[in-house]
Amino acid sequence: MRIIPILTVLGFLILAIGLSMLSAVGVSAYYDEPDFKPILFSALISIGVGTLLLVFLKRLEQDELRAREGFAIVTFGWIIVPLFGSLPFLLSGAIPDFTDAYFETISGFTTTGASILTDVEKLSHGLLFWRSMTHWLGGMGIIVLSLAVLPLLGIGGMQLFRAEVAGPTKDKLTPRVAETARLLWGLYVVITVAETIMLTAGGMSLFDAVCHSFATIASGGFSTKNASIGYYNSAYIDAVVTFFMFVAGTNFALHYSGLRGRLKDYFRDNEFVFFLVSFIVAVVIVSAVTAGSSYDGDVLRAVRYATFNIMSVMSCTGFATADFALWVPLAQVILLFLMFPGACAGSTGGAMKNARVLLLLKAAVNEFSKLIHPQAVVPVRYNGKTVDQDVLFTVAGFIILYLVTFATGSILMTALGLDIVTSLSAVASCMANCGPGLGSVGPMANYAHVPDLAKWVLDACMLVGRLEIFTVFVLFSRSFWRS
Amino acid sequence: MRIIPILTVLGFLILAIGLSMLSAVGVSAYYDEPDFKPILFSALISIGVGTLLLVFLKRLEQDELRAREGFAIVTFGWIIVPLFGSLPFLLSGAIPDFTDAYFETISGFTTTGASILTDVEKLSHGLLFWRSMTHWLGGMGIIVLSLAVLPLLGIGGMQLFRAEVAGPTKDKLTPRVAETARLLWGLYVVITVAETIMLTAGGMSLFDAVCHSFATIASGGFSTKNASIGYYNSAYIDAVVTFFMFVAGTNFALHYSGLRGRLKDYFRDNEFVFFLVSFIVAVVIVSAVTAGSSYDGDVLRAVRYATFNIMSVMSCTGFATADFALWVPLAQVILLFLMFPGACAGSTGGAMKNARVLLLLKAAVNEFSKLIHPQAVVPVRYNGKTVDQDVLFTVAGFIILYLVTFATGSILMTALGLDIVTSLSAVASCMANCGPGLGSVGPMANYAHVPDLAKWVLDACMLVGRLEIFTVFVLFSRSFWRS
Repeated sequence: MRIIPILTVLGFLILAIGLSMLSAVGVSAYYDEPDFKPILFSALISIGVGTLLLVFLKRLEQDELRAREGFAIVTFGWIIVPLFGSLPFLLSGAIPDFTDAYFETISGFTTTGASILTDVEKLSHGLLFWRSMTHWLGGMGIIVLSLAVLPLLGIGGMQLFRAEVAGPTKDKLTPRVAETARLLWGLYVVITVAETIMLTAGGMSLFDAVCHSFATIASGGFSTKNASIGYYNSAYIDAVVTFFMFVAGTNFALHYSGLRGRLKDYFRDNEFVFFLVSFIVAVVIVSAVTAGSSYDGDVLRAVRYATFNIMSVMSCTGFATADFALWVPLAQVILLFLMFPGACAGSTGGAMKNARVLLLLKAAVNEFSKLIHPQAVVPVRYNGKTVDQDVLFTVAGFIILYLVTFATGSILMTALGLDIVTSLSAVASCMANCGPGLGSVGPMANYAHVPDLAKWVLDACMLVGRLEIFTVFVLFSRSFWRS
Repeated sequence: MRIIPILTVLGFLILAIGLSMLSAVGVSAYYDEPDFKPILFSALISIGVGTLLLVFLKRLEQDELRAREGFAIVTFGWIIVPLFGSLPFLLSGAIPDFTDAYFETISGFTTTGASILTDVEKLSHGLLFWRSMTHWLGGMGIIVLSLAVLPLLGIGGMQLFRAEVAGPTKDKLTPRVAETARLLWGLYVVITVAETIMLTAGGMSLFDAVCHSFATIASGGFSTKNASIGYYNSAYIDAVVTFFMFVAGTNFALHYSGLRGRLKDYFRDNEFVFFLVSFIVAVVIVSAVTAGSSYDGDVLRAVRYATFNIMSVMSCTGFATADFALWVPLAQVILLFLMFPGACAGSTGGAMKNARVLLLLKAAVNEFSKLIHPQAVVPVRYNGKTVDQDVLFTVAGFIILYLVTFATGSILMTALGLDIVTSLSAVASCMANCGPGLGSVGPMANYAHVPDLAKWVLDACMLVGRLEIFTVFVLFSRSFWRS
């Protein structure tokens, strides 16, 4: 593994973060806030460090980047970027503690949305804007990662869900990635603008609309209000946000087809249909059981809150309009289990992804035919095509590692003194990059009270979940370091 | 599928249950108890029905039984046998409610040990003996099933863990199964007698020693005392029971080798080593955290209780010497997660089995090498041999179905009004055929308060868990019923 190209890409990422921070500097200047200086200073540090790395190192020859280096860049990138991203919080004194600032920022970049802030509304516009922007940049990174980079690296069966815009698989990361990235980012920007317009149409201020759109499209979950989207108490805004959370949780390759008029592609996609049907079933059950217990028999209200909060969990966004940690156990358990499949592959959402769960379910059901007809060869079919056995294996390995990580994380959380429901749901939620959990980390609570060490455990969970498990864990394998 | 041979085998099973019940009649007669009559009557009904089925139906030609019929026999057998097995409880009036009596009896035959009885010590000797015997018979059935029948049926990768005593795989269930069964049963009886002797040596009455040995060797968990093994408060008895729970949770094929002097086989077996190491690690952690919180810093007591109760959960027995539902969350969560791998394949213990978890972990770790060297073929090795891809698939399918069943069961339990910790742990424990859970179904509590419908859900969980998932679910598949 060569260190120079890795440092070069990291330099590029740090530079990009610094340049993006300038927009928050602009916001701060517009509102004439004292945070202007610390944010500007953070931007300059990032730009400086990034430029130094780029200038002093040999320039990256793009077509020579190897798979092994790809893993290192992705993982270290997602660890180092929040270091620079947390500077505005640290330097402004808004989050003086390093553990807290790093937690808030990695939660942003991984599009998790778990927060240690007890009073978000105290933050200046500049910082709020930057906080939401970490989501948006992270979401952009994930779209490209999951649709262009990871398929080439062969991570967790991702090659199945490659964007159609991407070229044929090659052993090296090719310039084609850049082309795919440009197209997807265009789409990403268009959707963000669309939501912003629709939110302002509902009476939300432009500033809040932009911040919430950043958080929705990235399926992040940071809000500018303590009561999250619940603050607005508007059925229109709930509906708009629900729709865009759904969009964010869907494979962006489908949106690309959709925008080119191939709307049928949505319903030809097994994962999309599975995602949609699971959503509808969950909404029906949760509305039915919460109408009586939480909404005085008002079925319409129950449906409205179930729809919003279930899609928030399924898309792994983490916005809330109700304190679902107070719903009946049945509704809570459904939300907890929905955190495992999570969103669709190639979306900004997190967790195992519906496609992987669906693939393994198909493989499991296939075993029945094999038991009855041991000689027969019954291939697993996905989106009308036969799935390669190797892909199924990779997917099975992914899910096992996901669950082992979940168990380990939960054990560590209880070891650090948290109760069972909080521990299990916090780890499930952070691995899924959702945000809120149950128990003491419910949607109307926050992660401020979590012990420092436990925050680092959750940081790791967010990272491992976001980068599809393998990308991180492969760095700990013997074969990675053997030359 | 032919109905005649299926009914014939069921007739044989019912007859066997009736004949076994005669031993409980003897116990009742010895203690001169009024339950003598209802137990005798139950035995006669079972013997009568069994004989009728055998006499009126064509005699089974053993070598003609087909795989499909095998599935039907195993599943229906395990559903119908408890019907007859519950007669003594119903007719004596000890458990007047049918739902409760069936729950108690299927919990016995599946070697789960979950009980609806609030005061076990009220039961007559005859009924207590029969209750423990349901475990012992169920355990016997499981040993043969998992080491001789299921491998032939190709269930969940079980072909890997076949007893060495069994002959080569054939497409039909052969008379060889009977030979394997005889050898394993001999072993089973010897171990039971050994434990009985050692328990009486520790001052336990012969009656209690026999009942507890029945429950230990079957990894069942029913006790004759309300406080379970905790009643004796004896380090010697704790140690004896822990040792035999460990024996019961180990592959009986290894014991067969061991008794023939091949002791090294134990440590050559990947699963045994994994089981042992997991146990030691769990004991160290749980002792360390409970010593201060539950045992006033008395490390020796903490180790004693951790050893016993962890082995009880890992072997899926369900005896208790401490109320682990009151331990710190870390210890509880470790016990909860240990309920998933459970015991070893080919043991009387339940759950996913360590071998399956280990196999998939190996397969998952293998993916790392594949990511680094995409061209390389790296086979998964188990016990020194390369594992066939098909076996790994079946194992992956097994684990997915196990988890989906767990999630579905938990959702149903919360739907029926139970809290989250109780629901999740009750389903995990019943699927693992362990017995006690956490929350309101902890080791010092019982299942009496669980709503009727939820009891039936748990009945199904015990059955599905006991019969290695596929055996039951295949009956619901289209290919099963298509001729």
